[in-house]
Amino acid sequence: MLLSGGLDSAVTLYLARSLGYDCLCLIFDYAQRHKKEIWRAKRIAGMAGCSAEVLRIKLPWGGSSLLDKKLFVPASRDNETTRQRDNIPSTYVPARNIIFLSFALSCAEAIKAKAIFIGAHAHDYSGYPDCRPEFYRAFSAVIASGTKCGCQGRPVVVKTPLIHKSKAQIIRLGQRLEVPFALTWSCYQGGSRPCGSCESCNFREKGFREAGLKDPALSIKKRFNFRERSR
Amino acid sequence: MLLSGGLDSAVTLYLARSLGYDCLCLIFDYAQRHKKEIWRAKRIAGMAGCSAEVLRIKLPWGGSSLLDKKLFVPASRDNETTRQRDNIPSTYVPARNIIFLSFALSCAEAIKAKAIFIGAHAHDYSGYPDCRPEFYRAFSAVIASGTKCGCQGRPVVVKTPLIHKSKAQIIRLGQRLEVPFALTWSCYQGGSRPCGSCESCNFREKGFREAGLKDPALSIKKRFNFRERSR
Repeated sequence: MLLSGGLDSAVTLYLARSLGYDCLCLIFDYAQRHKKEIWRAKRIAGMAGCSAEVLRIKLPWGGSSLLDKKLFVPASRDNETTRQRDNIPSTYVPARNIIFLSFALSCAEAIKAKAIFIGAHAHDYSGYPDCRPEFYRAFSAVIASGTKCGCQGRPVVVKTPLIHKSKAQIIRLGQRLEVPFALTWSCYQGGSRPCGSCESCNFREKGFREAGLKDPALSIKKRFNFRERSR
Repeated sequence: MLLSGGLDSAVTLYLARSLGYDCLCLIFDYAQRHKKEIWRAKRIAGMAGCSAEVLRIKLPWGGSSLLDKKLFVPASRDNETTRQRDNIPSTYVPARNIIFLSFALSCAEAIKAKAIFIGAHAHDYSGYPDCRPEFYRAFSAVIASGTKCGCQGRPVVVKTPLIHKSKAQIIRLGQRLEVPFALTWSCYQGGSRPCGSCESCNFREKGFREAGLKDPALSIKKRFNFRERSR
């Protein structure tokens, strides 16, 4: 299970658990701006009764506003034209999901896991190419041709159960599964509270609004009363 | 350029240089048994006049005799039957080349490199699925569908110039390109001298024999007179 600390991967984890999967959560510390999601992911894994492994990787070449604090994290692009929205935002981290999936694949082969779960979804598509179904189909072909399990006819399966769901549908599913939404962290900025203006905050806010629910993360300290690990 | 310290990637580096590529060498420290190849790779990059970046990654799940010193590195399988040779050896590291390529792809996208070079070859095929042409075709499809450069119609190209060459052909090519063979390290065991019995030593010895050349690595200390960094 690729777990980020965000809402989508938390719902995916709870969904996999509800389907009977025994999950090992892989959490990545890639010097992301919103590093606090790592701490949140560990808490979420613990609440789901799963073990977690934090993997530290270095991407010294940067190339993303999620990595380079000198770059600007763009605000929500809701007001942009359709044509502008086809551009890939500066928060895109080069090949990030490919790296994450590669590690998950290595782990899955070694521990003989049957599947990798990832919470990607293409509906509220913000321009990330590595969130689209065609990418996951291509990665599955890599598993079939480039791994031991693939050659032996037992390829690890990449599961993207949220891929065609909207944010509101994901939130409704998460509510049914009793996902601790208050613990999830979506904001690209690593501040003490969600910034409310980045694209990720915007998608989340819109999702809760469409689902007719209140986002419990906005009153997290009252509900969970835990100290955030300082950076 | 994915550089391992082995013979194949050194030839690939010198070939890329001869074709006019300005190369950045990525060297991986993945706690491999033959960790001394890292030091060799840095030396080779320096001799080729290229900069190098050593990336440390953890694969805590193991799953390979190259990672787990309690496992046995098999001797050459020359005497095995064809059927047995279809098995994948215990030196296979789960998804290793996929991880390496993912990092190289991230780097290439960030620095706007046109190509990734890797010294894989399928001719002296020892059973590694991630050394076959079909794997590299599949990975190219991942780049096309899952990256910014791919979506924008300028995908990073994965170059495998040795893929259809035999070891003897690679050695002859390396000789023409004046590759410092004495610096390259192929042995899977990390001893002070090549073990001479593992599959990698065997392929190398056979390659030099078929090319009608003497392997200068067997008298490396005399020729280069450098101290190996201790582990």
